[in-house]
Amino acid sequence: MKALQKQDLLDCHQRIAEHIHRTPVLTSRLLNEISGAELFFKCENFQRMGAFKMRGAAHAISRLTKEQQQRGVVTHSSGNFAQALSLAARSLGVDAYIVMPNNAPQVKKDAVKGYGGQIIECEPTLTAREKAAKKIVEKYGATFIHPSNDLDVILGQGTAAQELLEDQPNLDNIFTPVGGGGLIAGSALAAHFFGNDCKTIGGEPFEVDDAYRSLKSGKIEFNETTNTIADGLKTQLGDINFPIIQKYVDRIIRVEEQEIIEAMRLIWERMKIIIEPSCAVPFAALLRERTSFKGKKVGIILSGGNVDLGKLPF
Amino acid sequence: MKALQKQDLLDCHQRIAEHIHRTPVLTSRLLNEISGAELFFKCENFQRMGAFKMRGAAHAISRLTKEQQQRGVVTHSSGNFAQALSLAARSLGVDAYIVMPNNAPQVKKDAVKGYGGQIIECEPTLTAREKAAKKIVEKYGATFIHPSNDLDVILGQGTAAQELLEDQPNLDNIFTPVGGGGLIAGSALAAHFFGNDCKTIGGEPFEVDDAYRSLKSGKIEFNETTNTIADGLKTQLGDINFPIIQKYVDRIIRVEEQEIIEAMRLIWERMKIIIEPSCAVPFAALLRERTSFKGKKVGIILSGGNVDLGKLPF
Repeated sequence: MKALQKQDLLDCHQRIAEHIHRTPVLTSRLLNEISGAELFFKCENFQRMGAFKMRGAAHAISRLTKEQQQRGVVTHSSGNFAQALSLAARSLGVDAYIVMPNNAPQVKKDAVKGYGGQIIECEPTLTAREKAAKKIVEKYGATFIHPSNDLDVILGQGTAAQELLEDQPNLDNIFTPVGGGGLIAGSALAAHFFGNDCKTIGGEPFEVDDAYRSLKSGKIEFNETTNTIADGLKTQLGDINFPIIQKYVDRIIRVEEQEIIEAMRLIWERMKIIIEPSCAVPFAALLRERTSFKGKKVGIILSGGNVDLGKLPF
Repeated sequence: MKALQKQDLLDCHQRIAEHIHRTPVLTSRLLNEISGAELFFKCENFQRMGAFKMRGAAHAISRLTKEQQQRGVVTHSSGNFAQALSLAARSLGVDAYIVMPNNAPQVKKDAVKGYGGQIIECEPTLTAREKAAKKIVEKYGATFIHPSNDLDVILGQGTAAQELLEDQPNLDNIFTPVGGGGLIAGSALAAHFFGNDCKTIGGEPFEVDDAYRSLKSGKIEFNETTNTIADGLKTQLGDINFPIIQKYVDRIIRVEEQEIIEAMRLIWERMKIIIEPSCAVPFAALLRERTSFKGKKVGIILSGGNVDLGKLPF
């Protein structure tokens, strides 16, 4: 893999600019008081389709050749990346095939269809998903795009932190959640290239602390169970994002489920914005170790706002 | 009453500017598609203490003499105005006495205390509330400030629409909820002085349609029952705001309870922001009569975001 440069992120941002929102950075006096830090929330919950994943999806598609674009893209996901790839594909005039387990909630299927994605249902196992995606690749010549373990996706996700640092160049830290590793890897690259000694810190639930353990052991670890409310963070790292995380991420702070719910509630009640549980994890991590960040300027990537209002934890 | 001038609103805004947030104006492609209009949401849910009432409270206090300010202010309210007067008073270095019914929820009492207001409890009747407030006026020489039927409060509330028209000078309409009448009266004044033939329209629940009936009958009407989810809109108009509403408001559109809940849900899910039920009423009104506003530029005052997350209607 060729070493990444600052220019790679600048090029990426330029490529995707017309397909994404430049999301606002919000502040809250009350949350500053509670945390003891000066906080800057990068609101990717206001991003198109409601999450940062729009950035990586748009970038990955934009990097395909015209011929590849004509044959479409495919992924397997039942979460935000399914919606992101569908909308990004529509935005770029490309077909998107989304492999989803046949037990995925109807609301998720409807969202993908609403953004123009074509759903291929399969049995709810990883093997069945991979097989179904492979079939689409063979049948249509579509390009498979991984939700997090893809360099173009990683660069795309990094543009949120890049924009945040353009607005606030002197952040001491950037906090992100850690799921499949795309967001934190991209953010850490952006902090490295655009920050002024800005350290990237991950927030991860104790219940799915594979990334924390991976950094300790030096190899990609897995979760045996995934009993967390942060449903976007159940996936594990990949061989492309893990080396970037090892090199550029300062550390990962783990949080309890109750801390995630409390952090989510604080942001809902005090900032009046809707974030999904996974999105509350980095703020929960900051609160857990607030004494270490007293007086610091801290950026927090609010990763997404797609929640089922019928299933809230409060 | 001396005729109001454009300058009165300009002076008001200048007086309160340091005590309020200039709230953002958000847009949503999806809600534009759904409504058929071009919508501009003025986000007073992001205002200090979570509602536009901060504006009127700050203005009313700022207009008192130094001597009056030293003796404090008093109101009776268990809603947003209690919090607004408490925070505005603290912001201006003034004592605030808040008369609340002894059955008010603890969370509301805590909010008032959190903003520095001093609570005086009384029996939960209007007579008891008025008596308790009168006692404070006599004991401390405090000035009573009405939540909506006070010219300085009305002007203060009007500054939200004024800011919205500074940002979007060519709105065809401004929609607001109608409760006690302060917000819609102030907004209609702002639309008159700062708009370009901009018509002000109220949204009101059928269940508490006193203002709708008042405009029809030409005198202030009351509600016999108040079975609405829009708990901020249960109050009736007053003799100071009603003439302004008669003169400057175009009309009032009534909505069903289910329409309020659906409008609230649309804004939560699509815009990822938290609004209270009362705040969804003008958007519900627009959706109900969307054919009349097709292609129009419509401003909507999102009045507040203080909801009890434990008691959501979805």
